[in-house]
Amino acid sequence: MDYQKIIDDLHLKYKSKTIKGEVASYIPELKKIDSNKFGINLYTLSDENFGAGDYQEKISIQSISKVFALTLALKHVGESIWKRMGVEPSGDPFNSLVQLEFEKGIPRNPFINSGALVICDILISKLKNPKIELLKFVRKLVNTKDIFFNEKIVASEKEYGYTNAAHVNLMKSFGNIENDIDVVLDFYYHLCSIEMTCEELSKSFLIFANDGILPHSKERIISLSISKRINATMQLCGLYDEAGHFAFKVGLPGKSGVGGGIVAVHPDLYCISVWSPKLNKKGNSAIGFKVLESFTTITESSIF
Amino acid sequence: MDYQKIIDDLHLKYKSKTIKGEVASYIPELKKIDSNKFGINLYTLSDENFGAGDYQEKISIQSISKVFALTLALKHVGESIWKRMGVEPSGDPFNSLVQLEFEKGIPRNPFINSGALVICDILISKLKNPKIELLKFVRKLVNTKDIFFNEKIVASEKEYGYTNAAHVNLMKSFGNIENDIDVVLDFYYHLCSIEMTCEELSKSFLIFANDGILPHSKERIISLSISKRINATMQLCGLYDEAGHFAFKVGLPGKSGVGGGIVAVHPDLYCISVWSPKLNKKGNSAIGFKVLESFTTITESSIF
Amino acid sequence: MDYQKIIDDLHLKYKSKTIKGEVASYIPELKKIDSNKFGINLYTLSDENFGAGDYQEKISIQSISKVFALTLALKHVGESIWKRMGVEPSGDPFNSLVQLEFEKGIPRNPFINSGALVICDILISKLKNPKIELLKFVRKLVNTKDIFFNEKIVASEKEYGYTNAAHVNLMKSFGNIENDIDVVLDFYYHLCSIEMTCEELSKSFLIFANDGILPHSKERIISLSISKRINATMQLCGLYDEAGHFAFKVGLPGKSGVGGGIVAVHPDLYCISVWSPKLNKKGNSAIGFKVLESFTTITESSIF
Amino acid sequence: MDYQKIIDDLHLKYKSKTIKGEVASYIPELKKIDSNKFGINLYTLSDENFGAGDYQEKISIQSISKVFALTLALKHVGESIWKRMGVEPSGDPFNSLVQLEFEKGIPRNPFINSGALVICDILISKLKNPKIELLKFVRKLVNTKDIFFNEKIVASEKEYGYTNAAHVNLMKSFGNIENDIDVVLDFYYHLCSIEMTCEELSKSFLIFANDGILPHSKERIISLSISKRINATMQLCGLYDEAGHFAFKVGLPGKSGVGGGIVAVHPDLYCISVWSPKLNKKGNSAIGFKVLESFTTITESSIF
Repeated sequence: MDYQKIIDDLHLKYKSKTIKGEVASYIPELKKIDSNKFGINLYTLSDENFGAGDYQEKISIQSISKVFALTLALKHVGESIWKRMGVEPSGDPFNSLVQLEFEKGIPRNPFINSGALVICDILISKLKNPKIELLKFVRKLVNTKDIFFNEKIVASEKEYGYTNAAHVNLMKSFGNIENDIDVVLDFYYHLCSIEMTCEELSKSFLIFANDGILPHSKERIISLSISKRINATMQLCGLYDEAGHFAFKVGLPGKSGVGGGIVAVHPDLYCISVWSPKLNKKGNSAIGFKVLESFTTITESSIF
Repeated sequence: MDYQKIIDDLHLKYKSKTIKGEVASYIPELKKIDSNKFGINLYTLSDENFGAGDYQEKISIQSISKVFALTLALKHVGESIWKRMGVEPSGDPFNSLVQLEFEKGIPRNPFINSGALVICDILISKLKNPKIELLKFVRKLVNTKDIFFNEKIVASEKEYGYTNAAHVNLMKSFGNIENDIDVVLDFYYHLCSIEMTCEELSKSFLIFANDGILPHSKERIISLSISKRINATMQLCGLYDEAGHFAFKVGLPGKSGVGGGIVAVHPDLYCISVWSPKLNKKGNSAIGFKVLESFTTITESSIF
Repeated sequence: MDYQKIIDDLHLKYKSKTIKGEVASYIPELKKIDSNKFGINLYTLSDENFGAGDYQEKISIQSISKVFALTLALKHVGESIWKRMGVEPSGDPFNSLVQLEFEKGIPRNPFINSGALVICDILISKLKNPKIELLKFVRKLVNTKDIFFNEKIVASEKEYGYTNAAHVNLMKSFGNIENDIDVVLDFYYHLCSIEMTCEELSKSFLIFANDGILPHSKERIISLSISKRINATMQLCGLYDEAGHFAFKVGLPGKSGVGGGIVAVHPDLYCISVWSPKLNKKGNSAIGFKVLESFTTITESSIF
Repeated sequence: MDYQKIIDDLHLKYKSKTIKGEVASYIPELKKIDSNKFGINLYTLSDENFGAGDYQEKISIQSISKVFALTLALKHVGESIWKRMGVEPSGDPFNSLVQLEFEKGIPRNPFINSGALVICDILISKLKNPKIELLKFVRKLVNTKDIFFNEKIVASEKEYGYTNAAHVNLMKSFGNIENDIDVVLDFYYHLCSIEMTCEELSKSFLIFANDGILPHSKERIISLSISKRINATMQLCGLYDEAGHFAFKVGLPGKSGVGGGIVAVHPDLYCISVWSPKLNKKGNSAIGFKVLESFTTITESSIF
């Protein structure tokens, strides 16, 4: 299959399309992004790599990094993390407190904000220097030193992060946060502020396509079982309240962020990333969603 | 009517009764209270004053002070405060975030925690030194200098106040809190920590029985209209999710606190306070409720 | 006090005012009402009777009749009815199923639709011919034979009553409905279809102003205690999700219906009814609310 | 791989295990099932067929038949059905009305009761004789004439189906039901009452493993795209509020019923059915879930 041509065609087709959507505006730093940015990257397990557009530009990966945090937590702490959160879809907008209160401070899954906050709390309790170890882990997946937090994003999130503070306080009131609230929020905002290119994103997710083994070094990072379970969790909970639609139309496990990135995994074959900052009503990249739908339709490569 | 005899009889009757209930335990300082404490005080507009039991002992009035905060806010800011909260009963447990999220950060009324936090925010914006002015105001109502905050209670509330922090952060995320979160919470916890005797409580509420005029000085504190409206708000929202039951059984406007105090107002006649620390399932003094029910039944003095 | 002049003035003032609002449209029969109809009637315990405008025209009293049903149930069955419903405000729009499901089929109070459906079920189990006995009861209160159901309204309600059917089925699934669903709904729709004039409405509510005694015959209909409790329930739950606002602005127990009627009770003094079909956003007569607010302000007769 | 041995081993292992759970009891007919029944059947695309235990006994497939109804609706009506329901997980217990009311009568997906009721409504509008055509369709998938409704189950569902009646009435009130409520419920209860063996179940789901083509006749029943989308919908919404857990532990699209059956699909490979009537707290077969988890672990055949 001529992946380069398919990706070039998709880039050309959607570059000219006018698609409704708004750049994320809840923090000032994100609003500054040029809404016309658009990149696609495909990375295969046979180490081939196809890109189009702005795929080598750093983007704020935002919630996509929740997958890295979950992976680190499963690697270092294991299945006991599930005592503190579920793996069920939330069926609610991603910042809802209702469910969290109803379910006594136990987040429904690790990819909603409250779940990621608990993951942060777990990593803070377990790791000596969680911020450094997180960066080290992501850099290892990509085989680069060039991955950093964006401290401007961190500062902006902190200034406007009242909803997250509400979540973490509520969970603390239920006894599901061990560490100081400010420490948990600080780590969480750093987690959200990681910057990577589409190419790096695709490459970093290859372990989930490769049963837990890092392709370039053949090192096993996580077990086969953990790798499959993280894919399952992405499939069920990776796109906020649009996960069902994404499974239905794209048919791959994936994770999105409000920076406009989406990355999807085809087990045993490839990872694909798209970046386009305009978000649809559910908070996912509008063009990113359509590109991935077209890609799996053309290549007939849904997992279903 | 021989009020002293009625009150003595009620005190005797309920002193020996075993009534289920638990002393408030959400902060350690409150747990220390002797659960057998029991006081009743009636203060009439003709300046008569009838007490029984521990009615001259200082108690932590807790949420009862929300009535003072509302009164101060109406006095200094006026009806515009209603742009930032409603006057409808909540129909939910008093610490629920669900309604607040659904209604976009606008608390349903000034007596649920979120509403009182907004009132605190309003007073901080308006008054130079809100803590001192609050104390001054309450002291004036009672004509005494002997009313203080309990700083141990403040410290204990702060240490365990994650639910309140969740509320205020959520409201800030909706733009309904103007001041710094820590400043708002600090004032709120001081508000909750006021200590008064039953006698002082009854006396301080006489303005609501007297159309806004302080009986001992004849000074008008608030307008007739504000006085009636505060009574109406107490009637509808003063006893958490038991306001309907209280109207039904007692038939007077009233306000309770988790310290075990309840004060009720009979317009044009009297105020009555009861203190007994064991709380029923709805968070109101179990014996306090029953004493007030018996009192209005015996004296046939419900407002309905 | 010159009640006739006050009422005439209010009628004149509000007749010319343009007030936003919509005639109830959920059933076709109600939509047909002339939206400019406007009547006021005041009936005092001293048997004086003051009217203005269309106060002698029959109106569809709709939910106001829930007060009659509750009174009949308390009279015939007694306090055991509270095992099957509460007396707390709902804090939700009046047709919400959420609360009902959360609270396992126990309606929060007898004036929301689900509560009134349970009252209907109770009356069907207790009375031989509930429809006839209901009419007889209301006729007795007014001392007339000229009160009937409107069968067109009944038919219209039945045709569009899917929400009520949802409520009653849900409660049946929780075991809180004893009789056949169709029988309960049929009685409920008859209850809602009663037609009375403002004058008859005021007169029929005098028992609640008179401690349970029918003024014209001196017959005790209900006990003092039941009379006060029905007033308390009206105060807390009588105006859907605007009960707090009504207590705050009007300061009297009252009950509204989507036909545009509101009736309010001043214990020991009078009952007052207003009819104007345009409803505000909470489902209460927009002008009716304002007229009552003005009336208690002018006469300084709030119960608070 | 020696499928027969794997299945025999699993049958032996779980037959002797004591697993907590309760046979469905909401209708009397289901309570009568022997809770020790236990069957497994695997049907491969290469037409091999492996069974153990009671896999040839007829079971009440209950909600599993919602997959047949969805397939028929997509086949006969096409993608326009999604105007009347979503494809997102519900995040709530399967019989909840809350979400349905909040989302104005639009069910979140076709596998919760409300969604299946809308599918029934769609089929009634489209097909001349929906009950007969449904049976015909299922019989064709299995290549047998021996599949029927169980009229005793239908009668039992009707007698106790107040929750379903509440759902359908609520949706009718929002305009999302076209046909008579009784007709819709009658068809829905017939749908739920279909009886099949595990062997027939596995065989009937092979079209979803075979990209829409019936293996025994090579006839295309649905398009490749519809087949994949039905799998995606099963993956996201097929096991009530345990879909995430099922994806996580089993890793295959699947559908369960309260009769104790679960069927799962491995695209391009096989279908597998398990029957064991004791249900876990989420309403899925407790042993069925565990058997499928063990099976995909042993065979390393999760789709993730």
